[in-house]
Amino acid sequence: MLQLLLNAHRLKCTPRTGWVTRGVADAESVADHCFGVAFISLTLAEMVDRPIDKAKLLTIALLHDLPESVISDLPTPAAVHFPPGAKRKAEAEALNELLNGLPCAEYWHSWWQEFEDGTSIEGQLVRDADRLDMLIQAHVYEQTTGNRWLEEFWPPSEDLSFEFSAAQALYDELRVLRQRPT
Amino acid sequence: MLQLLLNAHRLKCTPRTGWVTRGVADAESVADHCFGVAFISLTLAEMVDRPIDKAKLLTIALLHDLPESVISDLPTPAAVHFPPGAKRKAEAEALNELLNGLPCAEYWHSWWQEFEDGTSIEGQLVRDADRLDMLIQAHVYEQTTGNRWLEEFWPPSEDLSFEFSAAQALYDELRVLRQRPT
Amino acid sequence: MLQLLLNAHRLKCTPRTGWVTRGVADAESVADHCFGVAFISLTLAEMVDRPIDKAKLLTIALLHDLPESVISDLPTPAAVHFPPGAKRKAEAEALNELLNGLPCAEYWHSWWQEFEDGTSIEGQLVRDADRLDMLIQAHVYEQTTGNRWLEEFWPPSEDLSFEFSAAQALYDELRVLRQRPT
Amino acid sequence: MLQLLLNAHRLKCTPRTGWVTRGVADAESVADHCFGVAFISLTLAEMVDRPIDKAKLLTIALLHDLPESVISDLPTPAAVHFPPGAKRKAEAEALNELLNGLPCAEYWHSWWQEFEDGTSIEGQLVRDADRLDMLIQAHVYEQTTGNRWLEEFWPPSEDLSFEFSAAQALYDELRVLRQRPT
Amino acid sequence: MLQLLLNAHRLKCTPRTGWVTRGVADAESVADHCFGVAFISLTLAEMVDRPIDKAKLLTIALLHDLPESVISDLPTPAAVHFPPGAKRKAEAEALNELLNGLPCAEYWHSWWQEFEDGTSIEGQLVRDADRLDMLIQAHVYEQTTGNRWLEEFWPPSEDLSFEFSAAQALYDELRVLRQRPT
Amino acid sequence: MLQLLLNAHRLKCTPRTGWVTRGVADAESVADHCFGVAFISLTLAEMVDRPIDKAKLLTIALLHDLPESVISDLPTPAAVHFPPGAKRKAEAEALNELLNGLPCAEYWHSWWQEFEDGTSIEGQLVRDADRLDMLIQAHVYEQTTGNRWLEEFWPPSEDLSFEFSAAQALYDELRVLRQRPT
Repeated sequence: MLQLLLNAHRLKCTPRTGWVTRGVADAESVADHCFGVAFISLTLAEMVDRPIDKAKLLTIALLHDLPESVISDLPTPAAVHFPPGAKRKAEAEALNELLNGLPCAEYWHSWWQEFEDGTSIEGQLVRDADRLDMLIQAHVYEQTTGNRWLEEFWPPSEDLSFEFSAAQALYDELRVLRQRPT
Repeated sequence: MLQLLLNAHRLKCTPRTGWVTRGVADAESVADHCFGVAFISLTLAEMVDRPIDKAKLLTIALLHDLPESVISDLPTPAAVHFPPGAKRKAEAEALNELLNGLPCAEYWHSWWQEFEDGTSIEGQLVRDADRLDMLIQAHVYEQTTGNRWLEEFWPPSEDLSFEFSAAQALYDELRVLRQRPT
Repeated sequence: MLQLLLNAHRLKCTPRTGWVTRGVADAESVADHCFGVAFISLTLAEMVDRPIDKAKLLTIALLHDLPESVISDLPTPAAVHFPPGAKRKAEAEALNELLNGLPCAEYWHSWWQEFEDGTSIEGQLVRDADRLDMLIQAHVYEQTTGNRWLEEFWPPSEDLSFEFSAAQALYDELRVLRQRPT
Repeated sequence: MLQLLLNAHRLKCTPRTGWVTRGVADAESVADHCFGVAFISLTLAEMVDRPIDKAKLLTIALLHDLPESVISDLPTPAAVHFPPGAKRKAEAEALNELLNGLPCAEYWHSWWQEFEDGTSIEGQLVRDADRLDMLIQAHVYEQTTGNRWLEEFWPPSEDLSFEFSAAQALYDELRVLRQRPT
Repeated sequence: MLQLLLNAHRLKCTPRTGWVTRGVADAESVADHCFGVAFISLTLAEMVDRPIDKAKLLTIALLHDLPESVISDLPTPAAVHFPPGAKRKAEAEALNELLNGLPCAEYWHSWWQEFEDGTSIEGQLVRDADRLDMLIQAHVYEQTTGNRWLEEFWPPSEDLSFEFSAAQALYDELRVLRQRPT
Repeated sequence: MLQLLLNAHRLKCTPRTGWVTRGVADAESVADHCFGVAFISLTLAEMVDRPIDKAKLLTIALLHDLPESVISDLPTPAAVHFPPGAKRKAEAEALNELLNGLPCAEYWHSWWQEFEDGTSIEGQLVRDADRLDMLIQAHVYEQTTGNRWLEEFWPPSEDLSFEFSAAQALYDELRVLRQRPT
C-alpha cells in the first residue's frame, strides 16, 4: 500500500502536458488538477437535484488520472498514432497493477471505468468537473501569463455542452468573465 | 460559486511554507498536498474497521486547507507570535467568508471544525492522513534533493503516535524505507 | 549573530505573496524587494532637500521586512481576519527575538517602529520607496508576463500621494511609461 | 517548413520524463538532450577508425527524438502496457507527418529507422551517444542535486556494453569519476 | 575528452542572456538554442542549391556557442565596454583551451572562425540559422508569455536581410504569422 | 533617474553565475546577494571598533554589483581570457553610464572604486561581507540541495583570511556549523 501512495505522489511532480506543449512555464501538476476536479465535483454535487453517491463521486475524482503516474499524460495529438483503444487499455492495465492486492481494487476499477465511459451519474459529473477545471485553469493562465495559444481550448460558439446544467451555468459565468475587458 | 472555485484554484500556486523555508526549490503546492491527503484518506478508509462516512471523510480532506487560500500557509514558528487561538479564528472566519451563501456552508464548516479539533472519526482520520502526506513528501524530498534540513520532521524515536493503526503501520514501513542504505 | 544572518538569508527564498497569489510564476523574493527598496531610498535621498540621516535611512530599508523571515509575508486580505494590531505586534515580537542580544537591538527596533508608524523623515522616505519598488515591479511584470491581475495595484486616478515630491515625480514618470502604447 | 521548425522548437520546452518521474526539479529539455547526443556523436566520430558519414551521423542525432514533439517522451514503464511495437509505430507515423512534403523526407526517415534498429554504423554510434549523454547527465544530477533515485541508471557491474570502444572508454572514465570520493 | 563533454553539458544549464535580461522566466538554455540552430541549418541545407558540406555545416552549428561554456553568454550592451575585438579573442582562446589535445582541434577551430567571420558558405548558413532560431524563439515567447520587451528583436521594416533566400522566405512567413490577429 | 532604477531592478532577475555553472537550480539573483552583503555589512559594522561611515558603507554595499546590470556576472574562469584589467574597466565604464547626470555620480563612483581596490575601511568591510555572503549561501545550498560541486568555495585549511576579526569569527563559526554531522 505504501507503494501505491508513492506512485500517487508522483502525480505531484508530473506536469500537465496540455499546458507544457503550449509554452506555459511552471505548469500545474496532475495532482493540482486532480484536487481541482475533486473540489469542483464536491461543489457541483450540492447543486444537482438527482441523487448522488458522494463517496463514489469523490473517489472517482481522486482516481481518474491515477494511471498517468505510470503512463504519463499523453498529449491529445499523440493518441491518433496509437491503435484505437490502445491508450485506454494501457491506462486500465496500469490501474490494475497499481491497485493490485487492495481489497477495493475491483470496485475502484469499475468506478474508474464508469468515468471513462460516462456510464453512471457520478462518472458523468466528474467528466463535467474535469472539463470545468481545465477551462478555469486556461482562463487563469490567460489572465496571468498572456498566453495566446490557449484560445483553442475555448469552443467557437456557446454550445460546449455539459451533462449537468449546474456545470453549464458555471461555464457560462466563466465565459462572461473571460470576455470582460480589463 | 465560481468565485469559490477561483479561490480554491489559488491553492494550486500557493507553495507549502514548510518546504520553502527549508530551501526546497520548486516546492509542492497546497493543492498538491490536499490531493495527497485526500488520496491517503481514501486508502486508509479501506483498512479501518470502524464505520466511516466516506463522503464526509473526503469532503474534510478537500476542505481542510481551504482557508489558506485567504490566510496563506502561516509558518509554524509564526504562530507563537499571535494571540492564542488567533490563527484558528482567522481561518474559521475566512472559511465562513469563502462558503458564504452556499447551502452546504453550515455542515461543511462544522466538519472542518471536527478536523481542527479531532472530534469525529473522519476528522481524526484526515489528521493522520495529513501527517502521513507530510512525511511521505519529506522522504521524497530527502531522496531526490539531498536536503538535510528535513531531518526535524522525523521524531527521534519510533513513537510518533497516529490515531489509527493502519496509519501507524504505513509510517513504520516508511521509516524502514527511509533508513535503508541506498 | 550567525543565526541572525541565516535568518536574514531566508528572505532570499521567501517569495513575495502579493505576486504569488496573482499568478506570477517565479516571483521575486523578499530579499529582492528589500534590495530594491534600499536602492530606491539611496537614490531618493539625493533628491530630497531636507536633512536626512542616510545611515539610519538605509538601515531601516534593510530591516523593514526582516520580521517576515519568521512571520512570512502575510497576504493583505488575511489581515482583516486577525485582531486589530495583531500582525504588527507579531512582527515587533519576531524582530525582538531576531535581534536579541545585539548591542544595536534597541535602536534598530525603534527605527523599524518609525517606519511602521511613519514618524520620522527616514521612516517616511522608506515608505515611499517601498511603494515605488512595488509599482516598478508591477510594471515590469505587466510588461514581461502580460499579467492582467496587477491592474489593481494602480490607483484609478493620478492621486496616489507620496510623502516626498521626488517620489511623486518618479511615480508620475512611471505612469506615463506604463500608458505608452508599445 | 516553418511548421516543422515550430514543432522541433517544442522540444525546447518538453522535459525529459526519466528525470521528472525521479523528482529532478527543473529537468533538462529534450532539445538539451538532443544537443548533447549530437555533440557526443561529433566527438566520438573523431575517435572511431571505421569510415563514417558524418553528415548522416549528425542528421540522425538531431532527428532521433523529433517524434517526441508529437508523441511526448513516454516513460519506460509505460511501454509494456501498449501492444508490442505500438510505440515505435506511433513514432514512425508522427515522423512521417512531421516531414511530410519535404524533399528529404524519405531518406531522413530511413536514417531514423537505422537508429531505431541499429542497422548502420551511424545509427549505432548515435545509440552509444544517446546512452552516454544520459549517463553523463545522471552523473551531473547526482553531483549537483544529491538525488538518490538515479542509482538505477547505472548497471551493477562494469559490463554495460557499448558498440564502440571509444564510447566504452568514456563510460569507464565516467564511472571512475563517479566513484571518486568528494 | 570527457572533460570537453562535461564542459559542453554546461550549456544545458546556461540560460540565454538576451531573454533573461528581458524578464523571460525559465528562459531556454544555450544548448536548447544550439539544437535549434543545428536543426534549422539541417533544414535550410535542403533548400539551398549551392553545394554544401553538410558535415562541416552541422559541426559549425554544434560548435558555434561552445566558448560560452567558459565565457558565458555576454549581453550585447556589455560588448561596447570591452576593447574592440576583446570578446571574440576571449572566445577564440577559450575554444582553443576546450579543444586542446583533440586531433580535430585545428580544423574545428578554423571552421568556427569561418562562422564568426562569415567567410564560408557553411559559416554563412549557420549565421542565418542563428538569427532565425532567435526570431522563432522571440515569436514563441511573445505568443506564450505576452512579453512586450521582445519587440526590439524585430526590425522596423521588412528588410532584415538574410544571406540565403530560403532563410529570408522563412523569415517572411514568420513575420506574417506574427502579425496575424489571434 | 527612473532609468537607473529600472536598470537596478534587472539585478532581481540576473542569476549569480557561480551557482548556475555549478548546477544550482533556481539560483539566487544578484539582487538577493546584494541584499545579503548590505545586511551583513550593517551587522559587521556593529562589531568593529574602528570608526566607520555607515552611510558610505551601505551605499558601497548596494552599489558594488550594479555594473552587472549591464556587464552581467562574468564567470571567474572567463576573466583570464580578457586583457588584464579589461573587466574592471568595463564595469567602471558601465557604472559611469548608469550614474550619468546624477549629482552624486562622482563620489558614488569613487566609493565603488574604493571597494574594488580595498582602499578604504568601508570598502574593505564590504569586501569581507561579500565573501561571507557567498560562503553562507554556499553552506545553505550544500545543506538544502546536496550539491557537491560547491566544495571548491571552501579553502582547504582554516586560513581564509578576512580583513576584520569580526568577519573572521563569523567565518570560523560557519565552518564549525558546516562540519557538524547531521
